[in-house]
Amino acid sequence: MEPRVDLITLGVPDLEVARRFYVDGLGWETILVVPGEVVFVQVGHGLVLSLFGAEALEADIGGGDGAPPAAAGPAAVPIALAQVVAQESDVVDALERARAAGGTVLKEPQQADFGGFHGYFADPAGFRWEVATNPGWSVDEDGRVALVPVGQP
Amino acid sequence: MEPRVDLITLGVPDLEVARRFYVDGLGWETILVVPGEVVFVQVGHGLVLSLFGAEALEADIGGGDGAPPAAAGPAAVPIALAQVVAQESDVVDALERARAAGGTVLKEPQQADFGGFHGYFADPAGFRWEVATNPGWSVDEDGRVALVPVGQP
Repeated sequence: MEPRVDLITLGVPDLEVARRFYVDGLGWETILVVPGEVVFVQVGHGLVLSLFGAEALEADIGGGDGAPPAAAGPAAVPIALAQVVAQESDVVDALERARAAGGTVLKEPQQADFGGFHGYFADPAGFRWEVATNPGWSVDEDGRVALVPVGQP
Repeated sequence: MEPRVDLITLGVPDLEVARRFYVDGLGWETILVVPGEVVFVQVGHGLVLSLFGAEALEADIGGGDGAPPAAAGPAAVPIALAQVVAQESDVVDALERARAAGGTVLKEPQQADFGGFHGYFADPAGFRWEVATNPGWSVDEDGRVALVPVGQP
């Protein structure tokens, strides 16, 4: 598993309050907004900050099919770090590596609502990582991220 | 305040457990280790993951002088996102901007133990941001971060 963070997802209690703070307040530009769902802001070379509802984040980790969120260890906090990988087998490999290293797989590799293929694990402290393919994600040579929604709502 | 994350700090209950997972387990290389204090891993272009004791993180946000940690809003989680800036006035400006946007300044701009000048704010959800100068931090044109300790232990 490569040492790389591509997305930092903050699970917030109120998405509009978060949007107002970062976008209207701090003046940060969005690269994609799905109203009521998610706000993406570029915060580095190839790096995106994602504002996402805390409940939606738990649902995504838990399976999104009404299943209760998976246990996430001693310090499950409303955040996820994510790595975008090229192939579905990279998702599988990363989760196996994390499991072998002592992490807890929270969501086995599977199709994701957004159109990619993903899974989640927690590190020993409970911090959650998503590993995903994302056909809507691209990064140009200057590190600018383009994100287009490809999944079914 | 620029939209940029330079460091992602995870406040972990056991630094050695975290180090074993990320370094020994996942095989990620460190760029600096201060034994018993902090482990830094490069996780992107100009981006560093910092593993830090959860109590040490709270002490740093709270002032580090024995003062209780500052209140951090409704969802204070053991994590901080950090931005490295060029000048002390950038720290002051960023914290004022965050305050004007509805954030809560948790630590007013001041000298930091690590040799820089820093402050902390929380966004409306309680996520904490550090803004800091750091004379030991540099990034080359390929995005490789060099970090050398400059503070007094």
